[in-house]
Amino acid sequence: MTLEVTPVPIQQEIKQGDNLVDAILESKPQPSIQDGDVFVFTQKIISKQEGRVVNLSEVLPSLLAIGVASEYGKDPRVIQLILDQSKRIVRMRNGIIISETNHGFVCANAGVDESNVKDGYAAILPSDPDESAERLRRQIKEKTRKNVAVIISDTFGRPFRQGQTNVAIGVAGISSILDYAGTQDNFGRTLRVTAIAIADELCSATELVMGKSLHIPVSIVRNYSFDDVKGTISHMLRSRSDDLFR
Amino acid sequence: MTLEVTPVPIQQEIKQGDNLVDAILESKPQPSIQDGDVFVFTQKIISKQEGRVVNLSEVLPSLLAIGVASEYGKDPRVIQLILDQSKRIVRMRNGIIISETNHGFVCANAGVDESNVKDGYAAILPSDPDESAERLRRQIKEKTRKNVAVIISDTFGRPFRQGQTNVAIGVAGISSILDYAGTQDNFGRTLRVTAIAIADELCSATELVMGKSLHIPVSIVRNYSFDDVKGTISHMLRSRSDDLFR
Repeated sequence: MTLEVTPVPIQQEIKQGDNLVDAILESKPQPSIQDGDVFVFTQKIISKQEGRVVNLSEVLPSLLAIGVASEYGKDPRVIQLILDQSKRIVRMRNGIIISETNHGFVCANAGVDESNVKDGYAAILPSDPDESAERLRRQIKEKTRKNVAVIISDTFGRPFRQGQTNVAIGVAGISSILDYAGTQDNFGRTLRVTAIAIADELCSATELVMGKSLHIPVSIVRNYSFDDVKGTISHMLRSRSDDLFR
Repeated sequence: MTLEVTPVPIQQEIKQGDNLVDAILESKPQPSIQDGDVFVFTQKIISKQEGRVVNLSEVLPSLLAIGVASEYGKDPRVIQLILDQSKRIVRMRNGIIISETNHGFVCANAGVDESNVKDGYAAILPSDPDESAERLRRQIKEKTRKNVAVIISDTFGRPFRQGQTNVAIGVAGISSILDYAGTQDNFGRTLRVTAIAIADELCSATELVMGKSLHIPVSIVRNYSFDDVKGTISHMLRSRSDDLFR
């Protein structure tokens, strides 16, 4: 079965409180929606819709933020935001700050991002991306009667390999991980434990149709079969004790 | 434009020297092939076709391999293969060996894998996956007159996040990285430097239709637009000095 990944363009600039599902249904051409579709939303549009865009003039940087900003030639208010969004700093070098966010994601700048928002503002991650995904799933169900899965994606770098990829930061209606443990290979032997980060792979697939600065904050993946479960991104977060690189 | 990802089942067990392009053309239903398609092959079928499957009874483990194997309860011959395929060990703990392969990939067990091969054998990565991809691209061109890109994929774990994803280990006819540097965002500001690992995202997209132990070692991605360049996976390998986690 051919997997289909269809971009959903949204021309209007989304503001806090806007109804994203209405915006999707008004998209031209109007997207077809079926049971079992997987909707992938970029983090930025969720943050905008949820009002998670901060006016930098209202951020008061601490001495630590001022110090770090001075070392790296950055805006101390942005550094303060990064610190506020972080549980701990994992690495800091050459102006790159890798931290663990309050949710447990390890990424650059705790997801704080000044691109594609108004000058003087910065977007921060949704406070509970699983809940954001669940809310959208419920709204899609209410408006269309269709049972879909929803994933919130963001663009993260990673160690060892150049380039960023889109990964999941919140899921609803789908497991973030597909576990093959106990499955047999073609030679009848049990596979070594293998779990696939399907939510990340779905996000990566949609990045290919969304690009970076186009008006495409949503994509629909069709013909991907999955178990309809509540799902949570926490299953994808490796604990520190289990991580060879923290 | 909808991106399409179509699996290509191959029922026969591929042996060294078999013609993979013939096997694809004999697949039922016969795959349609168009200019601009991206073919993604799993590493295992390439290794089999290239004879990169090692009879463990012919491997003589060193004292180091015997020591490591004894510590972790592993087969010393498999450990020896891992050491042979590695430039250096990056981490070793709890029976997990993360090494940098001779190509420069950082992954578990240097890509040595006993699943989906005969008992007593282990598959190792192709020696030059870019060249493997280029050879297949040339063969597809010769047999079908179509200009396609070819990517070789493998399944790697990563720090911070649970679950494995499919990533690229060789490319031909496509850049591994798409660089957005200098691109402007929707507010007319230059984006912070952002490069997307499109070859990895293409591999992740195909994993969704290939699963793990089915007879689907090839997928075709259609409607992905890219520049036809020679391409090399080396652009995706982060140097040690540039890596905060090595």
